[in-house]
Parts: sequence; C-alpha cells; structure tokens
Amino acid sequence: MTATIALDDLIAALSDGAVVTDPDIVAGYRQDRALDPDAGTPLAVVRATSTDDVAAAVRWCARNHVAVVPRGAGTGLSGGSSAVDGAIVLTTEKMRHIHVDPVMRTATVQPGLLNAEVKAAVAEHGLWYPPDPSSFEICSIGGNAATNAGGLCCVKYGVTTDYVLGMEVVLADGRVVQLGGPRLKDSAGLSLVKLFVGSEGTLGIITELTLRLLPPQPPACTVVGSFASVHDATEAVLAITNRIRPAMLEFMDSVAINAVEDQLKMGLDRDAGALLVAQSDAPGAAAAEEIAIIVEAFESHRASEVFSTDDPAEGEAFTVARRMAIPAVEKKGTLLLEDVGVPLPSLPALVDGIAAIAENRDVMISVIAHAGDGNTHPLIVVDPDDPDQRARGDVAFGEIMDLAIALGGTITGEHGTGRMKKAWLPNQVGEDVMDISRKVKAALDPDGILNPGAMF
Amino acid sequence: MTATIALDDLIAALSDGAVVTDPDIVAGYRQDRALDPDAGTPLAVVRATSTDDVAAAVRWCARNHVAVVPRGAGTGLSGGSSAVDGAIVLTTEKMRHIHVDPVMRTATVQPGLLNAEVKAAVAEHGLWYPPDPSSFEICSIGGNAATNAGGLCCVKYGVTTDYVLGMEVVLADGRVVQLGGPRLKDSAGLSLVKLFVGSEGTLGIITELTLRLLPPQPPACTVVGSFASVHDATEAVLAITNRIRPAMLEFMDSVAINAVEDQLKMGLDRDAGALLVAQSDAPGAAAAEEIAIIVEAFESHRASEVFSTDDPAEGEAFTVARRMAIPAVEKKGTLLLEDVGVPLPSLPALVDGIAAIAENRDVMISVIAHAGDGNTHPLIVVDPDDPDQRARGDVAFGEIMDLAIALGGTITGEHGTGRMKKAWLPNQVGEDVMDISRKVKAALDPDGILNPGAMF
Ligand SMILES: Cc1cc2nc3c(=O)[nH]c(=O)nc-3n(C[C@H](O)[C@H](O)[C@H](O)COP(=O)(O)OP(=O)(O)OC[C@H]3O[C@@H](n4cnc5c(N)ncnc54)[C@H](O)[C@@H]3O)c2cc1C
Ligand SMILES: Cc1cc2nc3c(=O)[nH]c(=O)nc-3n(C[C@H](O)[C@H](O)[C@H](O)COP(=O)(O)OP(=O)(O)OC[C@H]3O[C@@H](n4cnc5c(N)ncnc54)[C@H](O)[C@@H]3O)c2cc1C
Repeated sequence: MTATIALDDLIAALSDGAVVTDPDIVAGYRQDRALDPDAGTPLAVVRATSTDDVAAAVRWCARNHVAVVPRGAGTGLSGGSSAVDGAIVLTTEKMRHIHVDPVMRTATVQPGLLNAEVKAAVAEHGLWYPPDPSSFEICSIGGNAATNAGGLCCVKYGVTTDYVLGMEVVLADGRVVQLGGPRLKDSAGLSLVKLFVGSEGTLGIITELTLRLLPPQPPACTVVGSFASVHDATEAVLAITNRIRPAMLEFMDSVAINAVEDQLKMGLDRDAGALLVAQSDAPGAAAAEEIAIIVEAFESHRASEVFSTDDPAEGEAFTVARRMAIPAVEKKGTLLLEDVGVPLPSLPALVDGIAAIAENRDVMISVIAHAGDGNTHPLIVVDPDDPDQRARGDVAFGEIMDLAIALGGTITGEHGTGRMKKAWLPNQVGEDVMDISRKVKAALDPDGILNPGAMF
Repeated sequence: MTATIALDDLIAALSDGAVVTDPDIVAGYRQDRALDPDAGTPLAVVRATSTDDVAAAVRWCARNHVAVVPRGAGTGLSGGSSAVDGAIVLTTEKMRHIHVDPVMRTATVQPGLLNAEVKAAVAEHGLWYPPDPSSFEICSIGGNAATNAGGLCCVKYGVTTDYVLGMEVVLADGRVVQLGGPRLKDSAGLSLVKLFVGSEGTLGIITELTLRLLPPQPPACTVVGSFASVHDATEAVLAITNRIRPAMLEFMDSVAINAVEDQLKMGLDRDAGALLVAQSDAPGAAAAEEIAIIVEAFESHRASEVFSTDDPAEGEAFTVARRMAIPAVEKKGTLLLEDVGVPLPSLPALVDGIAAIAENRDVMISVIAHAGDGNTHPLIVVDPDDPDQRARGDVAFGEIMDLAIALGGTITGEHGTGRMKKAWLPNQVGEDVMDISRKVKAALDPDGILNPGAMF
C-alpha cells in the first residue's frame, strides 16, 4: 500500500506519462543485451524527459529508499542496466536535444540521443564525433559516456572519455551539478568529469554532455588481408602497430568470417583462418606510405589474399562486415560475450589461450577483436537448450577473464563491469583498489541507491 | 621532544640520507615557482629514492599526524607544493628510473624524471611523448601528472591525462596501489587513474606512471605573424581553429615580444601589438594546405608580416622565443602568474577585458597564451618594492579570474588550483561540486594529511 501511495507522489512529481507501470512495457526494460538471467522486476520505469524529471525521480527514490537503475538504450553487454527487484528503471531515451557550437567545436547533448544521431548532427556542421562502437546506430550517447565506450576508430582517435569535456549529473540525493564544461583545457579542482565517465550509473545520472568535436575525418584507405592462421594475423597486428597508428585495425576469426558471409554474401574467403581489416586516414600522400606498411606487414605474415582500396564505399563494406560479426555469430546460438583486453604484445598468447579453453571446455568460441588496441570479443556460443553446454560456457567465460588477468590484461576493454563481470573485478584490480573504489562510491552515494549490484 | 624521537623513527625507516633537516637545504624546498609568501617551514624534507621510501614516510606521517606535501621539481605556479609548517615535504626528484617498451608503445617512469628526459628516453626508441609544458626542461613527469600539465602541442595532441594509462600511488595510509596499467583500453571499475591525474597531491603520491607513447611527430612547418592589434590576433586564432587543428597556436603581446627580443635579439617586430606562432605537422602535401589556411587567416586579419618556414630549426627558434616569454617578462618585476582559460570564442573578450583591468588597476599585464585552446597566461608585473602596486596587482589577479568565470571559463587551464587560486575555485565550480570534491577527498584521505591547504 505504501508503495502505491509513494508512486502517486512520483507520478505527480514528473512530467505526464513519464512513469510507466504497464507490466508488458516494464518487461521490456528488465534486461540489456547481456540478457542477464538474474535481472529483477522493477517497480516502475521512468522515461524522463528532462533533467527536472531525473532529479525529481532520484529525490523520490532517495526519500523512499528505492533503488534506481539508470538506462540509456539498453544495448549494454555486461548487465549494467539489468533491473533490480523493486527498483525504478530510469531511462534517458526521451532526452534527445542537441546543440552544436561550430565555433567552439563542441556539442551539448542530452543523453538519450543515439551515437549515430550525434555523429549525423555534428556532421551537418562539418564536424566529427569520433567514438564509434559497433552498436553506434542503437546505443545512446549517455550510455557511451557511462561505459566509456570504445569502437573501431579509437585505436587512433581514443575512447569516449577523450571527448567528454563536461557533463551535467544528477547526484544520489537529487542535486544537479555541472562538472567541467566547454573548455578545451581545465585543471580547476578534481577531475570529477573523468571519474564519472565509465562509472556505469553508480555515481550519478548523466543528464547532459559537452563533447569535443574534430574536423571531419579524412577519407580512409582500407586494406583487407586473409590469413591461414589466427596466429599469423595477430603477429601481423603487432608488425603494424609497431610502425604506424592505423585508423582502424579489426580482426575476425574463421567462425565470424563464415557467419558474416552467410549473412552478407560479399565474397569473404571462407577458408581463411582469420581476416584483418585495416584503415589509414593519413592525409594525401602519407596514406600511401601507411598503406604500404600495412600491405607489407600482411604479406610478410603470409596473408593469402591482400586487397586494398581507396574507395570509401568499398572500405565501408568491410567495416559493415566487421560490425555485423556479433549479430551474425549470434544466429548460431546464445552468446556469452566477452570483452577482454591485453597489452598488445600478449595478443597472440591471448588468442591462442582462448582456443585452448574452447577445446578444453568443448564449446565454440569465435574471436573478433579491436585488434589494434588489444581488445578482443571472444563470443562463446552455446545452445540454449543444452544446459550442460551452457554450464561449460559459463566456466569458459570465467577462464577467459582469468587468462586475460594472468597476461596483465583487463576483464573489460570497453563494455564495462556491470553485473556479469563484477565477480572478477577484484582479481584484476586487487582488494585495495576495490576498497578505495567502494569508499568513493560511498562518498557519493552513501545509501547505495544508484544502480546497486552493478560494478560493486 | 616527541617530534625528535619520531623523526628518528622516520630516518630509520627510510633509505640512508633520505631525510634532510639541514635548515639551508630545507629552505630550498619551502616554495615552488609561485613563490607563495605564505609558505610554511617544514619539519624535514624527504628525498625518497623508492616507492618503499614513500610508503614508509607516509605511514610515519599517518601515525604521527604529520602532514605531507608531495613535491616534484618545484616548478609549479600555483603554490601546490608550498611547504606547510611542521609538515614533511616529500620530493620524488630522486626517483628517476624509466623503462620504455617499444612493442607496447608505453613507458613506465618514476615520477622524478624531468619531462625533457622522458621525451629523450622514448625518442631513443623512435617514439614520442607529446605533452610539452614550456617548463619541460625543468619540471618532473610526476608533477606533470599531478597537475595534468598542458603545453604547446596539446592544442592538437591533448594534455597529460590523455597519455596516462596507469600509475602506482601511495595512499594516505601508506598502502601502495596500482591504478590502470599498460592497456590501451580498460573499462574495469571506476576510472580512478583519471581522478588521480590533476589531483595535485591531495589524494595520494604518485610513485610510478605508465605513459602511452606515439610514433614520432612529423616535422612541423611554422608560420609567424605580427599583428597591429591584440584583437586582430585573437580573431585570427578563431579563423584558424574553425578550419583546422594546428599542432601549435601560441600568442604573445607586445610586452612579451619586447621582453623576449631584449633577451634573444632575433629580430622580432618590436612595434607589433601581438605575435602568433602557428605550426602544422600534417604529413606530406597536407601540410601545405594547412599552412595556406593559416597564412590566409593571418593576412585577412591584417597581419603586417607573415613568415613561414618548413625548416624545423627556424621553426624551433620561434618556439624557444615563446617559451622564453615568462622568464623574459619576469626580468621586469615580480610576476603574479595567471592561467585563465575560456571557451575559444570568448578569447578576444578575455584579452580585451584583461587590458581594461590593467588600465583600471594601473598595473602592467602582459598576456601570453596557448591561444589555440583558449588558455592564457596574463603576467601581472609588479615592483616588489612598491607595496601599493603589489596590492593593486593582487586585486587584478582576482579580477582576471572573476572575468574568466563570467565568460564561462576556468581559473586554471593547466597550472592547477594549488594554494594561490583555491579561494576562487568555489566561484567557478559551485558549492555542490566543492561538496562532492571534499567528500571524495575525505574518502581517500580521512585525516587530511595529504597536501593540506592545496585545492581545498
Ligand atoms: C552488437 C553490439 C555491438 C557492440 N559494440 C560495441 C563496441 O564496439 N564498443 C563498445 O564500447 N560497446 C559496444 N557494445 C556495447 C554497448 O552498445 C555500449 O556499452 C553502449 O555504450 C551502451 O549504451 P546504451 O545507451 O545502450 O546503455 P545501456 O545499456 O542502457 O547502459 C549501459 C550502462 O550505462 C549506464 N547508463 C546508461 N545511461 C546512463 C546515464 N544517462 N547516466 C548514468 N548511467 C547511465 C547503465 O546503468 C549501464 O550501467 C555493443 C553492443 C552490441 C549489442
Ligand atoms: C617558466 C615556466 C613555464 C611553465 N609552463 C607551463 C606550461 O606550459 N604548461 C603547464 O602545464 N605548466 C607550466 N608550468 C608550471 C609547472 O612547470 C607545471 O605545473 C609542472 O607540471 C609542475 O611539475 P613539478 O615537477 O615542478 O611539480 P611541483 O611544482 O613540484 O608540484 C606541482 C603539484 O604537484 C604535486 N606533486 C608533485 N609531484 C607529485 C607526485 N609524485 N605525486 C603526487 N603529487 C605530486 C605537488 O604537491 C603540487 O601540488 C610552467 C612553469 C614555469 C616555471
């Protein structure tokens, strides 16, 4: 009964229709793309339309000791926005305003705009927002900032945090603060804006972002190479990154190649053990030099086929193929999606080790990777109707993280810790770092109402 | 008496000779380059030679409730390492090890190495560490990380935080933690490493850094333009940054030009109202395009002389001239050194406003700037023997920060808040941000022993 009365307060405090309790609709907000089997059932979903809505909802949650799970577009792959029983799921999907300042070369964006929409809006002013997760057409810019999203071009252009100059945040007690702002350099006070990037909704809810923009990316040349073995391909990666900073350097193994070819029928080499897609966007004649270095690295690592093109449309076709890899492999079964990264020289050892785990646990693991920065996505494919295989897949999921940690790597290069990976976080960072992280969390959210169960 | 006994403990706990109490030597560690008149007298100076030394010293401080002021090379310009009465000044100047990993393209560096030494060591491996504060030959890499130092090339290449992948830190209770590491992408847990960058010794003492390196910078072309008025020059800056990302875009006003010319006699135009030094390091033919854009921006803003060169040595001479500006102007009196930054479109308004303050308060203010990112260094020159002028200078110092805040800017673009600017920090960030900053500080340093009085 109390819950109902309190919900009336919430409804009254927010804009019309913002509070959704229809069970069918609410059910759609229980999970993100990690499809966390342990996701709970929320009390209600709040579709905020303004910072005021977010602040009022959080104040209501604080007063009533109700947890709040922030949510962008729900494309997360670590269960970061899995619903919690009795909590409010607060989505920013309806907060979609953007203002581009071409003189400042910044954009002020509400969190609900999709990454692709941000890119399009700034392109109208001749500007470029680089971070490009493969999910860029379906993930929100707020979710990108909350997870510090990566992507394909970040091997050269950096990740989301490198582009966040400022943000407006609703704190755990409902206060609204502005961190950083449209200043290209700012050393005043603690770097809270960078602390909030990647904090996965555990420290506050992002209600606006100030993004740094670049002049448009020069047209890129693309080189594609087919390799007999995965090992040759990963060694070729090192030969490239030793000499240049490519604008893209992506990897697919044979499972992924075949799964993509099944979908796209674009003539990928089905017999290849691995495929690399590299790009150079160096301006003018410098591109030719970089392309020559890439081709040489491919050939000296026994690439069976090397194809290069300076036609952007042809190049984009291979980028699309690479982006298609996750959904294509997903057709083969349920995915347990990994995101482990290692120091680059350990990339071959990581990929070899994953093959050994697959063999040992008798599960299919397809590896795709943002290879140029050592970040791999091993996709463990399990038959949803075979509980024994699923159990073996779960074991492999943990073993891959153990392997990455043993190689000096990370359990997550870009998807975040969320709920699916938090059991491994202490193994990577150690108990002392967990301790100070918890202290920072407690300092900003003493009652633990912000996304409880995520990361911590 | 207690203090003496306790100091014996400290001496015993550290490596030989690390604890210095000789008053003459200690006096040299009381101030940084801000020459804070309120700097205190420390109990002792610790010249740590290892992480163990730092940890033991901090444990001793924690046990004895003694404050510790971390110090790198003491070139800071905001009083961040001004000594505190009865505190330990802990300098990392003797921690000078570096290991470069050319395959990873990272360097693991102890904090005491000078920025120029880091640049030189990585250059031996054909690599480049971009951040280049004007003080690069005299400031430590640990101090750079602690202040999130900027520099000349950061208009294109970013500031220190963009290059810090990991660090080892001694916490307020003496525990040693590793934050981040040699991974190009890592989204595991909170972004503590970015929180510690720029924290000015208030959250922990940095004992090792893992730095990201780039392939060598392509040779740069330089364009120098003399302008009749400061206003024309700042408008030219906007005309350039609207179209390209120059690799450098620096500004000097007539006072600085003449002061530098007094020193270097290199033939700078003594009649000019302002000088801009711009560089393009775009590879190959692209450089010519960028240079043409810069020249056009200069000419269309009535530059009286435009000189361009692709001879790196000739270009470097102008960079040296710009770096010489602070010491050259310093010959005219005592400097109150500002570091305010504004959103770029407000740069002309800031520079005009500073001229008005100078006139109003009847003090000389020379303006130099990392103009391309809106970060200016107004140098207030006062006669040390004229207390009334000094007082007027102090008023102007505050008024310039007020002006920057009113223009949506920052009180410090790169030097940090330290002790000299902390009174203005709440005006910039607001009481709520101060509140959460204090909470983060208290979470990590509950007894407040780390650099008390700096920033907070
Ligand atoms: C096919 C596919 C490919 C992908 N490829 C990539 C890739 O290349 N790189 C990459 O980095 N990711 C990738 N992802 C993962 C995902 O798209 C990113 O993590 C993305 O940043 C999530 O954005 P979202 O809006 O969907 O956030 P959600 O999934 O809704 O939320 C993600 C996390 O952020 C928090 N959050 C969301 N919005 C806010 C807010 N406004 N304030 C505070 N916290 C908030 C949530 O609580 C949760 O912890 C991929 C996903 C899919 C399905
Ligand atoms: C002529 C001149 C030109 C300059 N130009 C620039 C410029 O272009 N850009 C720029 O950014 N700065 C510039 N500076 C300022 C200064 O050089 C920088 O702030 C530099 O980063 C300070 O380094 P340092 O080693 O001297 O640090 P210090 O002055 O010793 O300390 C600076 C701050 O960092 C803290 N600190 C130092 N070492 C550690 C550590 N190991 N762990 C934790 N905290 C630590 C101190 O407590 C203090 O708060 C200039 C200074 C001068 C004198």
